[in-house]
Amino acid sequence: MRVQGVARPKTQLLSAARIADGAIELVDRTGDVQMVQLARHLGVAPSSLYSHVTGRAEVIDLARLRMLELMESVGPAHDWREAVANLLRRLTALYARHRRILPLLSTTAVACDRSIAVYEPMFAALIDGGFRRDQLRLVVAMVEFQAFGLAQGLPAPVMSDHIRETLPAYTASVDHSRYDLPTATEFSVAMVIGGLEAIRTHPGAP
Amino acid sequence: MRVQGVARPKTQLLSAARIADGAIELVDRTGDVQMVQLARHLGVAPSSLYSHVTGRAEVIDLARLRMLELMESVGPAHDWREAVANLLRRLTALYARHRRILPLLSTTAVACDRSIAVYEPMFAALIDGGFRRDQLRLVVAMVEFQAFGLAQGLPAPVMSDHIRETLPAYTASVDHSRYDLPTATEFSVAMVIGGLEAIRTHPGAP
Repeated sequence: MRVQGVARPKTQLLSAARIADGAIELVDRTGDVQMVQLARHLGVAPSSLYSHVTGRAEVIDLARLRMLELMESVGPAHDWREAVANLLRRLTALYARHRRILPLLSTTAVACDRSIAVYEPMFAALIDGGFRRDQLRLVVAMVEFQAFGLAQGLPAPVMSDHIRETLPAYTASVDHSRYDLPTATEFSVAMVIGGLEAIRTHPGAP
Repeated sequence: MRVQGVARPKTQLLSAARIADGAIELVDRTGDVQMVQLARHLGVAPSSLYSHVTGRAEVIDLARLRMLELMESVGPAHDWREAVANLLRRLTALYARHRRILPLLSTTAVACDRSIAVYEPMFAALIDGGFRRDQLRLVVAMVEFQAFGLAQGLPAPVMSDHIRETLPAYTASVDHSRYDLPTATEFSVAMVIGGLEAIRTHPGAP
């Protein structure tokens, strides 16, 4: 709730967290966040907003940090497998709740140290697990790609008499499909862990 | 093809392929395709465009088909590993050339039989390779997620004195990063093939 005072009390109530929450709400609802719309959504003047952030890119980066902070804590992991599986499951759930912000996140630089810190336990677990230093960023990329894709999902499959007659293998894939987010997430976790295990134990791996 | 009379000769030049090429060009340049803009881009009246397609969704589906047709032929594969690796490499190269159309593709239904037919050899190879029918659609989803992610890439990594002091594992990942599209693609291929091999040979796999 805003408390109205005499001079310009509104800006006193602005905070990084409130700006980030407002941005997430706005993107969830409209698919985008622009400074003027965000100021209106927060009930403040654009100038007040600009006294807290430099512009749209910083707002999006604050939203990313806020989302990562709201993500169920990954916590300490026994080993790299658990660290990777936890991060993949939790990122997927987070991204699935906020699908419309994904295109904005992937085109905005990560500038906030605290966003990066969320990934530190996984990087550490990967080093402990014997992955090469030059593989670390690649591993995190693969996990991010899977979480993004799982959250966005696939276009619905189509079927027709003509497809049924001419594309039997595709038809079998649709007739037996059990594609839903929980199943696809666990399939992805099994693939990523199995694939990274193969890479980890293969000296000539990419 | 519709046969046009004397008055409006331009529409004679319209075809599904030309509409699709125009849509791809427009999205590559502007990030979106709307019917009025596409008609202008093609030098025809909107009504001419509507005589060939029902609307924007069909245009996007035609663009998808055109892109898949332009994709280097996947050809017959010796086994599922080769089929999956070929599709992942070629989809990634295709999507990387047309990054801005990706958000449109993921939100538009695949309605054209010929787009689906592109995937048939891989579905068939997966069945031959012993994957369960209910795993087929999940496998293709994983390949799509990786190709989408690889083509879109990651935000650039950041570094600062503070990060260097407080996040040593992340710092190592940046200092030793060799993240580029060819390297990331081959890492992804190795992970996907290794992971699917683990799933294929594990009776209780998801």
